[in-house]
Amino acid sequence: MATATEANALGYNLKVDYVINYNFGDLDQAQAIAQLEKLLRALANAGLECEVRQGDETSLLVFVRASKKRLNRAVYRSRVRDWLYGIRNAEPEPASSIEPQNEGERLRAINHMITLPTEEGGAGITPNHGEWKNVTGLLPLHDEETNKKWLHEWSQKTFLSEDDLDQIRDKFGESVGFYFAFLQSYFRFLIFPAVFGFSCWFLLGGYSIVYTLVNSLWGIVFVEYWKRKEVDLSCRWQTKGVSAVETKRREFKPEKEIRDEGTGEMRGVFPATKRMQRQLLQIPFALLSAIGLGVIIATCFAIEIFIAELYSGPLKSYLVFIPTILLSALVPTMSAVLVSVATKLNDYENHETDETYDTALTQKVFVINFITSYLPILLTAFVYVPFASHIVPHLDIFRLTIRPFVSDEHATTADCSHFKIDPHRLRNQVIYFTVTAQIVGFAMETIVPYIKQHALREYKAYNKKKNGKSENNGDKDSPERSPIMTYDDPLEEKEFLKRVRNEVELPDYKVTDDLREMCIQFGYLALFSPTWPLVPLSFFINNWIELRSDFFKICMEFRRPTPLRCDTIGPWLDTLGFLSWVGSITSAALLYMFCGDNQLGPNGEPTDIKGWALLLVIFFSEHLYLIVRYAVQTAMNRLEPPNARKERGERYLMRKRYLESTLKAEANEETEKEDLVSEVPPEITRSALEADARRNSGHSADPAERFWMRQRGWTESAKVGAGIIQAQPSKGNAKKQQ
Amino acid sequence: MATATEANALGYNLKVDYVINYNFGDLDQAQAIAQLEKLLRALANAGLECEVRQGDETSLLVFVRASKKRLNRAVYRSRVRDWLYGIRNAEPEPASSIEPQNEGERLRAINHMITLPTEEGGAGITPNHGEWKNVTGLLPLHDEETNKKWLHEWSQKTFLSEDDLDQIRDKFGESVGFYFAFLQSYFRFLIFPAVFGFSCWFLLGGYSIVYTLVNSLWGIVFVEYWKRKEVDLSCRWQTKGVSAVETKRREFKPEKEIRDEGTGEMRGVFPATKRMQRQLLQIPFALLSAIGLGVIIATCFAIEIFIAELYSGPLKSYLVFIPTILLSALVPTMSAVLVSVATKLNDYENHETDETYDTALTQKVFVINFITSYLPILLTAFVYVPFASHIVPHLDIFRLTIRPFVSDEHATTADCSHFKIDPHRLRNQVIYFTVTAQIVGFAMETIVPYIKQHALREYKAYNKKKNGKSENNGDKDSPERSPIMTYDDPLEEKEFLKRVRNEVELPDYKVTDDLREMCIQFGYLALFSPTWPLVPLSFFINNWIELRSDFFKICMEFRRPTPLRCDTIGPWLDTLGFLSWVGSITSAALLYMFCGDNQLGPNGEPTDIKGWALLLVIFFSEHLYLIVRYAVQTAMNRLEPPNARKERGERYLMRKRYLESTLKAEANEETEKEDLVSEVPPEITRSALEADARRNSGHSADPAERFWMRQRGWTESAKVGAGIIQAQPSKGNAKKQQ
Repeated sequence: MATATEANALGYNLKVDYVINYNFGDLDQAQAIAQLEKLLRALANAGLECEVRQGDETSLLVFVRASKKRLNRAVYRSRVRDWLYGIRNAEPEPASSIEPQNEGERLRAINHMITLPTEEGGAGITPNHGEWKNVTGLLPLHDEETNKKWLHEWSQKTFLSEDDLDQIRDKFGESVGFYFAFLQSYFRFLIFPAVFGFSCWFLLGGYSIVYTLVNSLWGIVFVEYWKRKEVDLSCRWQTKGVSAVETKRREFKPEKEIRDEGTGEMRGVFPATKRMQRQLLQIPFALLSAIGLGVIIATCFAIEIFIAELYSGPLKSYLVFIPTILLSALVPTMSAVLVSVATKLNDYENHETDETYDTALTQKVFVINFITSYLPILLTAFVYVPFASHIVPHLDIFRLTIRPFVSDEHATTADCSHFKIDPHRLRNQVIYFTVTAQIVGFAMETIVPYIKQHALREYKAYNKKKNGKSENNGDKDSPERSPIMTYDDPLEEKEFLKRVRNEVELPDYKVTDDLREMCIQFGYLALFSPTWPLVPLSFFINNWIELRSDFFKICMEFRRPTPLRCDTIGPWLDTLGFLSWVGSITSAALLYMFCGDNQLGPNGEPTDIKGWALLLVIFFSEHLYLIVRYAVQTAMNRLEPPNARKERGERYLMRKRYLESTLKAEANEETEKEDLVSEVPPEITRSALEADARRNSGHSADPAERFWMRQRGWTESAKVGAGIIQAQPSKGNAKKQQ
Repeated sequence: MATATEANALGYNLKVDYVINYNFGDLDQAQAIAQLEKLLRALANAGLECEVRQGDETSLLVFVRASKKRLNRAVYRSRVRDWLYGIRNAEPEPASSIEPQNEGERLRAINHMITLPTEEGGAGITPNHGEWKNVTGLLPLHDEETNKKWLHEWSQKTFLSEDDLDQIRDKFGESVGFYFAFLQSYFRFLIFPAVFGFSCWFLLGGYSIVYTLVNSLWGIVFVEYWKRKEVDLSCRWQTKGVSAVETKRREFKPEKEIRDEGTGEMRGVFPATKRMQRQLLQIPFALLSAIGLGVIIATCFAIEIFIAELYSGPLKSYLVFIPTILLSALVPTMSAVLVSVATKLNDYENHETDETYDTALTQKVFVINFITSYLPILLTAFVYVPFASHIVPHLDIFRLTIRPFVSDEHATTADCSHFKIDPHRLRNQVIYFTVTAQIVGFAMETIVPYIKQHALREYKAYNKKKNGKSENNGDKDSPERSPIMTYDDPLEEKEFLKRVRNEVELPDYKVTDDLREMCIQFGYLALFSPTWPLVPLSFFINNWIELRSDFFKICMEFRRPTPLRCDTIGPWLDTLGFLSWVGSITSAALLYMFCGDNQLGPNGEPTDIKGWALLLVIFFSEHLYLIVRYAVQTAMNRLEPPNARKERGERYLMRKRYLESTLKAEANEETEKEDLVSEVPPEITRSALEADARRNSGHSADPAERFWMRQRGWTESAKVGAGIIQAQPSKGNAKKQQ
């Protein structure tokens, strides 16, 4: 026990680089053993050391460690590839003197050794796919001590430093690093609107034009700033242009094999036009999502209004919960169905690379998220408030549905003519989505899974104990098993293996989910914050926790992610830009509709809304937004991020050295024929030479040669020129003559 | 004479590469001669042969030819630079075996030899600038025979082939090549709207919704197509990424010198923030332009309406011309003033590279062009038509200006209440700008300068003859001069030198002016063509002529341009996108306002225009445009242009070769230690080995080492794994046991 803890404390994880989870549950023993041998042979051939231990009942843990020499070669190969693709500036040093720069590069290189096809020098193991579908996990082990240390450190400071981000990147790879860098930048940027929003709220209340303008401008600046920051980070982390190295999807099904004219290789292709036709299905899908979710949300909404504001029969205090329950039950269900449809659609589109696949899926998921997140508020603002007096009377139909349960005399709904729009409804809804929902979300994504996980482990242990007992009682074939522990681990590895078994059971971490959450949050800020200027303050506080809790989540509730490189947060960047744009429309509309100038009518309805004025405000606001965005983009493009400048400097120096060596070689040659450009003219008089030239010209048949023979050397040309100049009656000449 | 013509016919231009025009008009003789010597020495040092001949009265012609060896070295140097900047894929062959690929590359290399600073291996001659301000021209000579041949060929075919474009590029460089390729693509693309527009005009008349939609879509597709085409062309012409090689502006004034941290060199910098502050002056400039030109145009317009539609006094038939005369006189004057202000502003912005300077100037000039070209039509459509009945009565003030000249009883303007909007005014104006103005423009830019040039030459020759005679009579110092010819050229060079003297006198060609013309034309199509669907047909015919006349213009009315490389039409591309976008707004508005459904009122005013409906139409049209554009962009991005694919294939092969050689080197190493991964397990039983491992573990202090010592080689791991698998009560096992 003591030694295992010691190893832990050293952070060595017993020098294990990767753990492979080999699941033989669905194979018979002979197959299982053959497949295991195949796996181990492939690993050994790729230069990896293995150790096998028992996993759970139907799985083995294969511990993998790379030999130093082979690892260095893999690192070298990956750097050469980077250099060829223009990601690195300089050709890497030879393999013998290379070292992985950090843990991230080391793990990535080993991952490549395991997963790359054999012809590219890897073991060709593709977890969960094809012939390796029994390999259900490939994961590095968490470095628990460091994780704990960081969590503790971060809980005591407001901002992460650049070094902290570098460390995250070293441990979890650039893709997670980019997420935390984004979150950190966003958090830092939120200070300004948090303070400003608080002041506006305090001094001006909601719907202030100043706040709206500043908030829009802030959105533009933030998105553009982040674009620059991405470039800066990708230069700092040497991943600029990494998206140029595309990885082919394993699931890609080529329609036919053709011989590539340029490269002469056989290549599976899938016609782009055919894919585009399939992508057209996105349009009905988006409509379907909008209608499906829209109907659910609008209906629940209508029921809520009916019950809260019209209905005054019995059971009202219970009935008000119906729409909330319906909404909480139906929307996630519908979303899940739609996401699975989106995934199927995306698979059907048969993308060639992981990058395009992810982008396409992100777009589809974003449509669903947009609807579920923003539609309720949009409905309140742009349907309920302006049109309530026209719509509400029709809500009486709900009375019909209640009638069977409630006797007629009780079902006295309020008279529609006395209906009054709830003027705070919109603000309350915004507060709900930006405060309550954020807290609920935090609990759902961090706390609940943690508790669930622990409960599940307890339950499993309890079950195992029970089963072990009953098995032991019935089956005497395994006398070496202790009645309590199912595993016969060496004592000193017990603690370690228990931890590994727990880690293997965890799900894979997907950074895109966390990014999505942040983008949706940014959307509330851009779209609706003029309603309640405390939104940025709420987000500022929330994101301080978010950053820590996300790190906690990665460390405790997910397998350690395999380091992936990237140079951008990818399609989410476009999403941010899009939301900021839409915000310029919704903010302006909200401002116009609810601004203090518009008196509310007797039933709480704003009376003064004029269609043309609203549209004019939107038109101006949107185009003002686009112009300002263009200006900010132009200005930002001029300012070069520091790491990008450094990188450019390096590239420049490299070029300069090369060119200088070329020029030097020339200069050496030059000295050999210095005489050609000699300053001393041949001691012949000009007239003699010209006569000479003319004589020559008579002999040469080529008029061009005759032309070029007239003056020999530059000194002679100079003399001829001087002669012409002197012959001209120039000012100077004229004066001299006088 | 015969030999000179022969040389001409051979197209050799006497093997002259460049002609330098050296003007000594403002120097006294000693200075002039010293400067000439300096020039000739610099050229000779850079490895260039020279011949001097007389130019006009105050200038010399220096003919320059590059020695083959030095030229090849210059080409090599430029290719190395390209390779380092990633423009070429492969490292160039050594200088000794290199040849300029075509005339363009040859001329560009020689231009570099002449103009590059001496430390970069050139002669450091900067025409019209600094110490070389007496060098007023640096030009290659036209290849007249080829030009004539091409003009003749092209006049007989409808479309230029890819080869024709390649030839233009070889002769005049990529920048002119790109212009002609653009013009050709645009011309080819016009077929569709020309035919479709004609059909719509024939069947549906003006303001058809079908035509408007198709026209907008066509605009999007064309702009996106051209973006792809640019990539394709830049791959074909090997200039992809050429804009990365920035050329520092000679006029750039650094504010201070700082040491660059990355490169350790001194570098002149000008703070970007300061430049941005200066660029803010663009805003008042744009306002000033808009107001200045707007007032002129609106006033002339108002006068025109007043005279044409209200005034009925005497002299009306003469007075109607007043606004046209005013407009023709004031607008070009004002434009010229504004362009010079824009140039000054641009100089003041102190751009560091030629590229940013040109882009900034293009933007400013575009603002002026936008106003002069489109404001008249916009005024008619969106001010005159909807608001005429409110504005026209105020035009009575013009009566006051007429009163002094016309007696009161004559000045009977029509009663305002009888005023009737001219419903054809808008269409007539569109026809004027898209047909008449194009023809006038063609005449002004091609025919008039040609006639002027010839007239000027005749006049000069006449003058010279007269002067020569009088000089001859008064001054007997130059007896060798014939009384008629002022130059004492060798007889066989007479013809050639005459031609060179003419070419030197021509102005420099600026491709951006021609591009601007085309972009403005595209704007009419995008913004106003729904009014009169024959617009594309008119442009189609016009552009057939335009392409030929522009080539004629370059050959006959301008110096031969020095080949410049580029990979795009630059800022004009953004302009096209912008115009197409604005078109989505104006087209929709025109369609809504003038569509047949809106009945005209009694005074010709459309009665049914509703502000909110107009704005709603614009809102939908614009966003539909943006969505469709996004879809088209996405779709187009999937389709890889053929030359880009070829280039990618080459790059891929290059990388593959390199990686394969790396892998091969590894494979050789690998065979040496095949034993490590040997299939044959050491002939020791499993139990013995495990015991061995356990024994070892006892000795080793490091728990990690003990962990990794348990199983030796993959075969042993396989055995251990098989043991665990067999121990599990799996399905297969259970069955077997049964």
